[in-house]
Parts: sequence; structure tokens; C-alpha cells
Amino acid sequence: MGRNIHYPLIIVNLKTYLEAVGKKAEELAKISEKVSYETGTCIGLAPNFTDISRLSIFNIPVFSQHIDPIEPGPYTGHILAESVAEAGATGTIVNHSEKRLKISDIEVAIERAKEVGLATVVCANTTRVGIAVAAFAPSMVAIEPPELIGTGIAVSKAKPEVVSNSVREIKKIDPNVEVLCGAGIVSGRDVYAAIKLGSNGILVASGVIKAPNWENSLLEFAKAAADASGEL
Amino acid sequence: MGRNIHYPLIIVNLKTYLEAVGKKAEELAKISEKVSYETGTCIGLAPNFTDISRLSIFNIPVFSQHIDPIEPGPYTGHILAESVAEAGATGTIVNHSEKRLKISDIEVAIERAKEVGLATVVCANTTRVGIAVAAFAPSMVAIEPPELIGTGIAVSKAKPEVVSNSVREIKKIDPNVEVLCGAGIVSGRDVYAAIKLGSNGILVASGVIKAPNWENSLLEFAKAAADASGEL
Amino acid sequence: MGRNIHYPLIIVNLKTYLEAVGKKAEELAKISEKVSYETGTCIGLAPNFTDISRLSIFNIPVFSQHIDPIEPGPYTGHILAESVAEAGATGTIVNHSEKRLKISDIEVAIERAKEVGLATVVCANTTRVGIAVAAFAPSMVAIEPPELIGTGIAVSKAKPEVVSNSVREIKKIDPNVEVLCGAGIVSGRDVYAAIKLGSNGILVASGVIKAPNWENSLLEFAKAAADASGEL
Amino acid sequence: MGRNIHYPLIIVNLKTYLEAVGKKAEELAKISEKVSYETGTCIGLAPNFTDISRLSIFNIPVFSQHIDPIEPGPYTGHILAESVAEAGATGTIVNHSEKRLKISDIEVAIERAKEVGLATVVCANTTRVGIAVAAFAPSMVAIEPPELIGTGIAVSKAKPEVVSNSVREIKKIDPNVEVLCGAGIVSGRDVYAAIKLGSNGILVASGVIKAPNWENSLLEFAKAAADASGEL
Repeated sequence: MGRNIHYPLIIVNLKTYLEAVGKKAEELAKISEKVSYETGTCIGLAPNFTDISRLSIFNIPVFSQHIDPIEPGPYTGHILAESVAEAGATGTIVNHSEKRLKISDIEVAIERAKEVGLATVVCANTTRVGIAVAAFAPSMVAIEPPELIGTGIAVSKAKPEVVSNSVREIKKIDPNVEVLCGAGIVSGRDVYAAIKLGSNGILVASGVIKAPNWENSLLEFAKAAADASGEL
Repeated sequence: MGRNIHYPLIIVNLKTYLEAVGKKAEELAKISEKVSYETGTCIGLAPNFTDISRLSIFNIPVFSQHIDPIEPGPYTGHILAESVAEAGATGTIVNHSEKRLKISDIEVAIERAKEVGLATVVCANTTRVGIAVAAFAPSMVAIEPPELIGTGIAVSKAKPEVVSNSVREIKKIDPNVEVLCGAGIVSGRDVYAAIKLGSNGILVASGVIKAPNWENSLLEFAKAAADASGEL
Repeated sequence: MGRNIHYPLIIVNLKTYLEAVGKKAEELAKISEKVSYETGTCIGLAPNFTDISRLSIFNIPVFSQHIDPIEPGPYTGHILAESVAEAGATGTIVNHSEKRLKISDIEVAIERAKEVGLATVVCANTTRVGIAVAAFAPSMVAIEPPELIGTGIAVSKAKPEVVSNSVREIKKIDPNVEVLCGAGIVSGRDVYAAIKLGSNGILVASGVIKAPNWENSLLEFAKAAADASGEL
Repeated sequence: MGRNIHYPLIIVNLKTYLEAVGKKAEELAKISEKVSYETGTCIGLAPNFTDISRLSIFNIPVFSQHIDPIEPGPYTGHILAESVAEAGATGTIVNHSEKRLKISDIEVAIERAKEVGLATVVCANTTRVGIAVAAFAPSMVAIEPPELIGTGIAVSKAKPEVVSNSVREIKKIDPNVEVLCGAGIVSGRDVYAAIKLGSNGILVASGVIKAPNWENSLLEFAKAAADASGEL
């Protein structure tokens, strides 16, 4: 447990959902910590930037939703790797489909994250983009077909071959890169399938945040992840 | 004093300068609070997003460096007005020259800020842009010719007519909009001149952050602002 | 007639519709020229950049769909005012809702257009944005609520007060700025209403390009514009 | 000869240099055609979008400087693959350092180019970005360290290992991808070195456009390319 990343990993992206801002983000962190202890599955949260420091007191890894490819300096309104690390983050998402980056900026953002000790989860909308970003040696690649995001149709169900092909091709480029599976995940079954297809965790947002009961939802996901991993 | 804005106003933009991240931002907040009490000049800080909540315990107004023109929802990596307000900010900068917005987004960002009770400081690189953004009825317009930012050559010295013309023309569009003066301010003289030219405060960054002694620098600026205001 | 702009003015935006690329753009130009002669209404076309020179041989004004706020120099992939003028354009659209610009870039783009003798049609999605851009003294402001673009519901019908308020407020800022009316225009009635509400022409795209018969459509629009203008 | 691409290939990027707009672009095309006949080296030009159709009558391949990742439709101000092809282009540059794209957009832009029969030259600022974009199977990757662009210090001289490593690693990902060498090339020597290091041509801009005599410059480059290729 603790703030280090281990696998299987569930990252919950809080996006800018009002349901998970401020104190409510703290509430979710408390639940995540608890579920993580109970199941052994690592649960990380990616809150609003303004909430990173609040969540860093919990025993879970906290992720920034984005960092900019900048050095310290005159960059008003940008997200500096050092600020995010200082606030207590363990890692950062890069190139989420709602915050896509230029390819050269992905390379620099990953370098900057490494310099300050942040793990990197680079999102890819297709297998080929996943292969491409693997060239930058991030910690993880999250495969998220954007047409499935928020639909409740899990990529692990609708496009299983996208997951398995991505895992195989990304590992060919760099075997140290872990693959996460995102988009449309709403049930323990989706999580189970994702891990059986070779991924090492999931990136989820509305599937948890919009669920009627956060603890039940997280528990279902975390158990499925633990089960699937145990059987491998 | 306190977290409300009053005039004359000095806003210190901490940008993504490493000198002013995290604990160092808190240190600057403590100093700002003290100088503000001593001089009666309102001093606000615009820290990294990750530091807004840390600074909100001080008796000074805190500004976000930017907000995005979005409603709550699936906007990973964006800056939501509600998050910034919840973290304790009093206001937000909009359209800083290092984070320029599309014109239609400026209108929406200002609306969103108003909805959550944030004051707005809209930056303008020219007098005409200042006039244009005044149409959106922000709380303040900060005139900052970008070619002077970080130069140590104050707009109030180098281009006094830019300041006085901007004040006159902006007040014609909307007399409730306060005008701040930015770019190149490094001395109490620059601050004094800015206010004598009709502005009601300044927006400053490196002029404070890179100064050898923050307290001396802020004290010089705040006294000059109080003096100039008292004489009007 | 000829390549100069006169009012009432109908600008047809060819966007990147395949129906109006290359030779088909020439065909539309031929029809526009003819209808313009017959009705006395000025008809301008805004084709793909690659088609500007092809259309410049016709006796109608040709508009660029966009220009970048750049001087000649190392700006691969950008739209230079001089290139557009050299290709034979009479004017340029700026800040179309599908190609929105930062506010400071609108100012520079308009300046660059003026330097090379191009008329400017600045698009505004709201009345306030229309007022704001009027500060830059463009030749025309086109009011186009984006929620109506391509719907077949004309702004002049759905939101007549947006048109009349925009005309009044924009003329207050600068009486030399002409106001065009855009979004959702599909019939001669819409055009007639637009001009009766105080605008001096329209900006239309799918209403013409997707019409079953270009000549009939243009003729209907141009006659309505001429009728409405004649009655003022 | 003719409008098809063969190797070694020299692509001259006319950027938005005023020296090479309109009639001057035609002049350069005439010279390029002549030098190409004399030396057997393929010379392509990448002019302003507005000049593509003018240059398509010459017996040289013409490249667009950029295309957008869009289908035909309502995309005012964008560059549609079909428009560029219809204007007579043989290929297109994608992701030039002055017009960088999001990684997912590079994939789509390359697909769109293939659909309309355009060859693709994807620019990469580093070897790793070159490897990454090779995953999208473009026709060519041009390695251009941006810090050398316009300096007169050729990448083939200053950083020969960047060229040779890029060629080796890109060919590992996809042996069908040709590698071009860009940035800082000003002499026949630079061209010769580039090809000896394994690239199959160059991408050059100011090195030709700003040269005192276009024909001499192109002749020197084209001969060096032919010589180096003949010796391989």
C-alpha cells in the first residue's frame, strides 16, 4: 500500500466533475485508501490540480491530470512538473484525449516528469498512437478509444483486440512499459476482461465518479482486478 | 485587509517560477499579508494552481493564473472555475499574455468566474485589446505590453500614454472596470507613476519574485501605491 | 459589379465542402457573377485557399477563409496576408467560429489585412464579441451564433434582437463597420429579414452549397437582399 | 523526371517567405525543373497553399506545407487533403516544427493523405519523435532539430549521429519509410554528408530561398545529392 504504484492499478480520473471537487475528492480518497487495503489492488486518483495537495496526505498514489512541457520560468497558467511533485503527486497523466499534446511536447513532458520523479501515464486513442508514444519510454500507456469514453461500453468488451494488440505491440517497442485499459469501463467484468487481455490495470472516470455508491463501485473494480491478476 | 480586494491593488504573479512554488509561496504570502497590514495597500498573489489552497489561509486575496471557459464535466487537465473557488481563490487572471485565449472563450471564462463569485483580471497587450475586453465587463483590465514583460522597463515609464489612454478609453466603455498596469515594473517609482497615470494598481511578476529581498521589494511597491493613491 | 465590395453583400463560405472544391468552385463563381449582374447584389465567395487564384479571374470579390497574424518569414503551413492578396483576394474572413483566434491575434490579423489592402470580415458568436472586435475597426463584423450554424434556423428569424442589438451597439463603437448576419440562413425570407433588421448583408455556407440548385438559391437570396435594401 | 517522387530528393520549403510568393514561386519552379533535368536529382517545392495550383503545371512534385486531419465538411480555414490534391500536389509535409500537430492528428492526417494519394513527409524534431511517427507508416520522415533551423549549421555536420541513428531506428520500425535530413543545410557539402549518413534526401528552406542565386544553389545541392547517391 502507500503512495507508490503497484499493479494491478486502477486510476480514477476525477476530471472536472463537480461531484469530485475539493472535500468530495477527499472523501473519495478516503474510500480509495480503504478499498486498496482490503483488496490489495492499487488505487490512484487524478484530481483537479487544486486538489492534489489535499489528497497527498492519503496512502494512495495521486496523479496530476496533465503537465506542460515546460521548465520553471515565466509560464503563467501552465502546469509545472515541479509544482505537481511538490504538491505530493506520484505521477501524471499525459496526452489525455481531452488534453491532447503535440508529439514533440509529449516527449518533453515525459522527460520533465522523469526529472522530478513523477511516473507517467500516456494516453493513446489508437494502437498505433500507443506504439508511437512507447518510443518515449513512459511508465504506462493507457489505451482509450475516445469514441467509447463515457459510453458505458468497455473497450475490453467492444474492442478486445485493440487491448491485446496494443499490449503486444507496445511491449515489442519497450517491455518495461505497462499498459492500462481505458474508456467505457463500468463493471467488474470489464476490469476482469481488461486484465485477462494483458493490460495491467485500468483508467476510469465516470464509471466510478457517476456511480451511485463510490465504495461499492471501487470494491467491485478492485476485486475484479485482484482476481484477474491472481489467476495469471 | 482580509481576502477581499480593495484598491490600490498589487497583484504578484508567481508564474511557474521555482522561487515561488509550494512552501516558498507560503513564505511570500506571509510577507504579503504583513506588508499589506503595514501599508494599507491590497496585495494579492497568483500562485501555481496546486498552491491556491495553501495560500487561502492567509489574509490576502489569492488569484488563479487562469481558468478555462468550461462548465463542470469531462474536461481532464482543465481549470474549472468551481475548483479554483473551492480552493479559496478570490479572483482569477484571464488571458495573460503567456496563456492567451480565443475571444469567445474570454467572454465565457468571465461569465463562469462571475457565476462562482471570482473577480476577474483580464490582461490586454494593447489599448485596443483592453477596450475590446472591457465589453465583457470584467472586474479589472491589466494593460501589459508583452514586449516589456520581464524587461525591467516599466510600461508606466516607457509608454505612459498607453496607460492613460487605456484608462480613459476603457472607462468610456464601462466605468466600473478598474485598470491595472503591468509589464516591466521594478521600482516604487514605476508603481507611483502607474497610479498617477490613472490606473488603480499593478500586476507584477519578476519585479518581485526575482528581487533580492521580497519584503523590501513589496514594501517599496506598496508604499508607493499608497502614496500615489493618497495624493489623488 | 467587379471585384470591389458593395452592399448589400452576400458572402458564400465554401468551407471545406467537397461540393465546392476546385472546378466546382469555379462553376459557383460563374453563377455568382451572373446572379450578381442580374440583381445588383454583390456576391463574394470564400473558397479553399488553394482555389483563391482560380476564382480571382471572375468579376466577384473573393475572400480568404482566414489569415494568420504573421509577417512574411519562417511560418510553414500558415496563411500569409501577402499570399492571399497576391492570389487575387479582395478580403478575408477572420475569427470564423470554426477557426477562432486569440484576441490579440485578431488585432494583428486585421492590421496585416489592412497593410496589404484586404477587406476584413470578423466573425462574432455573440453581440458582446461583436462589440469587442469592433474596437479593431474591421470592414465588417458578421454575427453568427454558432449554435445556429448549419441548422437551417436563421439568426434573423430565431434571434432577431441579436441582429438589431449588434448593429446598434457595433455602430456605437465604430459607425464605419458594416454588420453582416450569419448562421442558419436558408431562404430569401431569412435574407430579407436580416437586412430589415439593420445588417448590410449575409454570410452563408450550407444554405447555398448544399442547396439542390446553386443558381436558384443564389438568385432567391440576392433578390431578397436587393428588395430589402431598396425599401430602406 | 516529372511530378512523381524519386530519390535522392530535395524538397524546398518556401514557407511564407515573401521572396517566394506567387510569380516568384513560379520562377523557382522553372529553375527547379531545369536543375532536376540536368542532375537527375528530384526537386520538389512546398509553396504557400495559394500557389500550389500555379506550380502544378511544372514537371516537379509539389508539396503542401500542411494538411489538417479533417474530412470534407464544415471546417472553415482548414486545409483539406482533397483540395490540396485537386490543386495538383503530389505530397504534403505534416508536423513541421512551425506547424506541429497533436499525435492523434498526425495519424489521421497521414491516413487522409493516403486516401487522396498524397505522399507524406512527417517532420520530427528528435530521433525519438522520428521513431514514434514511423509507427504511422508515412512515406518519409524528415529529421529536423529545430534549434538548427535557419542557422546555417547543418544537422549532417553538427549532429551526424542524429541522422545516422534516426535512419537506423526508423528503418527498424518500418523499412519502407525514407528518411530526409533537414535544418541548417546551406552547402553541397551538407547535402553530400546527409546522404552519406544514410538519408535519402533533404528538406531545405532558407538555404535555398535566401541564397543570392537560386539556380546556383539548387545546382550545387542537386549535384551533391546525385554524387553521394551514385557512390553508395
